[in-house]
Amino acid sequence: MTTDLRSLPHLQVSFRRLRDHLDALAEIGATDTGGVSRLALTDADRDGRDVVVGWMHDLGLRVDVDGLGNVVGTWPPDRSDPPVLMGSHIDSVRGGGNYDGTLGVLAGLEVLETLITAGVQTERPVAVAFFTDEEGSRFPPDMLGSLVYVGGLALEDALDTTSVDGAALGAELDRIGYRGGAPCPAPPPAAYVELHIEQGPVLEAEGITIGAVTGVQGISWTELTISGQSNHAGTTPMSMRHDAGWAAAAIATFVRSLADELGPPAVATVGAIDLQPNLVNVIARHARLTVDLRHTDDAVLTEAEGRLAAHCDSLRASEGVTIERRLLARFAPVDFDPEIVALVEELGIALGHRTMRLPSGAGHDAQMLTRVAPAGMVFVPSVGGVSHNPNEHTCDTDLEAGANVLLQVVARLAGVEASP
Amino acid sequence: MTTDLRSLPHLQVSFRRLRDHLDALAEIGATDTGGVSRLALTDADRDGRDVVVGWMHDLGLRVDVDGLGNVVGTWPPDRSDPPVLMGSHIDSVRGGGNYDGTLGVLAGLEVLETLITAGVQTERPVAVAFFTDEEGSRFPPDMLGSLVYVGGLALEDALDTTSVDGAALGAELDRIGYRGGAPCPAPPPAAYVELHIEQGPVLEAEGITIGAVTGVQGISWTELTISGQSNHAGTTPMSMRHDAGWAAAAIATFVRSLADELGPPAVATVGAIDLQPNLVNVIARHARLTVDLRHTDDAVLTEAEGRLAAHCDSLRASEGVTIERRLLARFAPVDFDPEIVALVEELGIALGHRTMRLPSGAGHDAQMLTRVAPAGMVFVPSVGGVSHNPNEHTCDTDLEAGANVLLQVVARLAGVEASP
Repeated sequence: MTTDLRSLPHLQVSFRRLRDHLDALAEIGATDTGGVSRLALTDADRDGRDVVVGWMHDLGLRVDVDGLGNVVGTWPPDRSDPPVLMGSHIDSVRGGGNYDGTLGVLAGLEVLETLITAGVQTERPVAVAFFTDEEGSRFPPDMLGSLVYVGGLALEDALDTTSVDGAALGAELDRIGYRGGAPCPAPPPAAYVELHIEQGPVLEAEGITIGAVTGVQGISWTELTISGQSNHAGTTPMSMRHDAGWAAAAIATFVRSLADELGPPAVATVGAIDLQPNLVNVIARHARLTVDLRHTDDAVLTEAEGRLAAHCDSLRASEGVTIERRLLARFAPVDFDPEIVALVEELGIALGHRTMRLPSGAGHDAQMLTRVAPAGMVFVPSVGGVSHNPNEHTCDTDLEAGANVLLQVVARLAGVEASP
Repeated sequence: MTTDLRSLPHLQVSFRRLRDHLDALAEIGATDTGGVSRLALTDADRDGRDVVVGWMHDLGLRVDVDGLGNVVGTWPPDRSDPPVLMGSHIDSVRGGGNYDGTLGVLAGLEVLETLITAGVQTERPVAVAFFTDEEGSRFPPDMLGSLVYVGGLALEDALDTTSVDGAALGAELDRIGYRGGAPCPAPPPAAYVELHIEQGPVLEAEGITIGAVTGVQGISWTELTISGQSNHAGTTPMSMRHDAGWAAAAIATFVRSLADELGPPAVATVGAIDLQPNLVNVIARHARLTVDLRHTDDAVLTEAEGRLAAHCDSLRASEGVTIERRLLARFAPVDFDPEIVALVEELGIALGHRTMRLPSGAGHDAQMLTRVAPAGMVFVPSVGGVSHNPNEHTCDTDLEAGANVLLQVVARLAGVEASP
C-alpha cells in the first residue's frame, strides 16, 4: 500500500471487453425470460466454468482448482506469495439474473487484463477467484465454497453434502471435472475485494453509484409453530377462542413494529404463513410462520430475538395457544476491514462518483474471507432493487464505474510499483 | 294454543328409544373415528333415508317426498291442514359427528311416537321432516332443501345444481329413488321447531342445558387479494416495502380488534391466509385472505363491513399495495318468532332446566322456514363446542332434556285437546 490513486489516473478498464464477457457468460444456462439458471455443479455450471477458465488461460494466469472446485487465476503465474484476491461466484439461483456473482468474477478478470495489458507491475500478486455453490440453491447452505476455502468447514464434510435433487457434491464435482488438487483450505490472501450488485433498492433510490460496504448484517431466522383450537367461526365467542391464525398475524404485525422501533438498519420480515385448516369459516387450529430478523449490531439482533420471544410468551398466555420456536439459521454480523471500506469510499469519490457506506443485507463470499484476511466489497445499484430474478439489472455506466473502482482499490492494495 | 304445560306434566319421551334410533342411524356411513360421512344423495344418505322413512311408516305416519327429496312424516296421516312441523337434516359433512341434524329429526320422531303412544289428540297435525342437503358439502349452497321447500329457489334450478364431484342433483335424486311427487314449494306449516346441538361452546361454558335460540346471525364473507412487491428480506429497508404479507396480517389483527370493540354477539375471523412466494427471506408479493364477519343486527354488520373497507383503504395508501375485495357470501340476520323463543324459555324452565337466550352462529333449516311460518329452535350443549367433527358430543341427559322441551313446545303449539 505504498502508492495512491495519482499513480494510475489514466488507467481504466475496457468496458466493451467486460460487456462482451458478461454477455457471453449470460448465454450459458440462459432462460427464455432473459436470465440464467446455472445451478452449482450442473452441466450449465461446468460450461460456464470452462469458459471463464479459458479466459484465465488466455490472459496467462496460473489457474488453481482446489478440492471443492474453487478456481483461482493468479498473475504473475509464477508467484505464490499471498495475492490481492478479487472474486465472487458464477453459479446462480434457478431463474436468476445476469449480474449476481458474475459481475465480481468478470470485473476481476477485466481488472487483471487492464493491469497486464498496461504492463503495470504490482508489489503483490493479483488474483481472481470464483467460489463453488455460493447460492446454495442446489447444495445448501449458501457460501459453501468460500466457507471451506477459509477453513470454516472440513473439505470432507463439504464433499458429502447432498443436493436437493439427491446428488452428492463430491460425485458431481468429479462428473464435471472440477475436483482439483490445490490445497483447501487455501493459504490466506493478502486482501480480498468483491464487486457485487447491491440486490437492494438503496443506492438507486439515493442516486448513489458506488456503495462502500461496511459489513454484512447478522441474520436470525426463526420458525414459529402455533397450536390453538379449531372451532366454528360463527358459534365461538371471541372470548373463548384459541386462534392460531390470529396469533400468527399478531406476531407478523409485532415484527414490523419492532423493526420500525429499532430503526434502520434493522429489517424484519414474516415471509411465510401457513394456516390449518385454512378455511373461511373455521378458526385455525395450527399456524406456521417464519421470522427473518437482521441487524448489523449483534447486541441489537439479540435484543430483537429476545423481544420476539417475550411477545410469543405473552400471546401464549393471552390467547391460550402453544408456540414452539425453532431457530432455522443464525449468523453474527460481519464487519469489513475499515481500511478497505475507507479505500472504496475515497477512490469512488476520486473517480467522481457519489458514494455511500451501507451494510449488505444479503450474504456474500466476502464475509467468509474476513475470517482470514482484510476484506471488503464494492456495491453498484440494482435497478428497482430486483435480484434473484431474470429482470435483475444494473446500468452499463454503473457496471463500468464499479469495475474502475475495483481496479483502483486493487492497485492500491497490491502496491503499484511503477506507473507505465 | 289453547292448553299449557299443566296438561302434559306426566308426559316424557322415551330416551332409550331415542338413543337406539341415534345409534342405529350413526351406523350408516360410520367412519373409523366414531363419526359419520353421509354426504347428501350418496348411497349412505339413501340408506339413512330408508331407515328413517321405515321408522315413519312403522309409526303410521303419512310420508310425503317432494320433488327435491325433502321428506315429511305427518300424524294423523289423513290430515292435510297445516301441521306443527319439527325437523332438521340427516346428511352430514365429510367426517361429521352423530348429532348435527340427526338429533332434530330423530327427536321429532320420538316426540311423535310419545304423543301417539300416549293417545294425545292435538288440534293441529304434527309432522317431522328431514330436508335435503342441509350441509351443502356435496351440493353447495347449504340449506338447499329447505330453501326450495319455502319457495326461495325454483325447484328446476335446484335440480340443476352440480355436486363437487360433478354429479347433477336431479340425477342423483333419481338414482337413490328420492325424487317424489309432493308439491315443492310446500304449503306453509302452522309453525316450525327444530332441536339442534349448539355447535358452539357457550351453553356448556355457562352451565346451561336449554338454549332458546333468538335467531341466526347475519354473515358476511369477504375475500381480500393483496398485491405488493416481492423483494429481498435482507436488502429492502422497512421504509421501501410494499409487503402483501404484512398487510394481510394487519387486516387479521384489525378484524379481531373490530369484533372486540363491537362486543358480543359480534364475531370476526380470518381463517385463511395464503402468501406468495411464502419464503422465509422474501417479502410477499401477493396475499389472499378471507374475512368472516357475523352479527345479529344487520346495521352493525353493515357498519363492520364498512370499517373493514376503510381499513383496507388506509393500508393501500400507507403500504403502497392494491387490495381487491370480493364478497363471497352475505346473509342478513334472521329473527325467530318471539312467541316460540319465549315458549322454549318458559317450558325449559318449567321442566327444571337452566336456560338462556342466544343467537345461532351457524345456519339452520329453521332460518329458511321463518320465511313462511313462525319458527324457532331449541339448542342443547355441544361438549367443547366441537362440531363437524367425529368428536362431536352431547351428554345423554342434555339430549333427553332437549327432546322433552321439544315435546312440550310442540304440544303447546299443536294444541293438546285432552290430557289422557
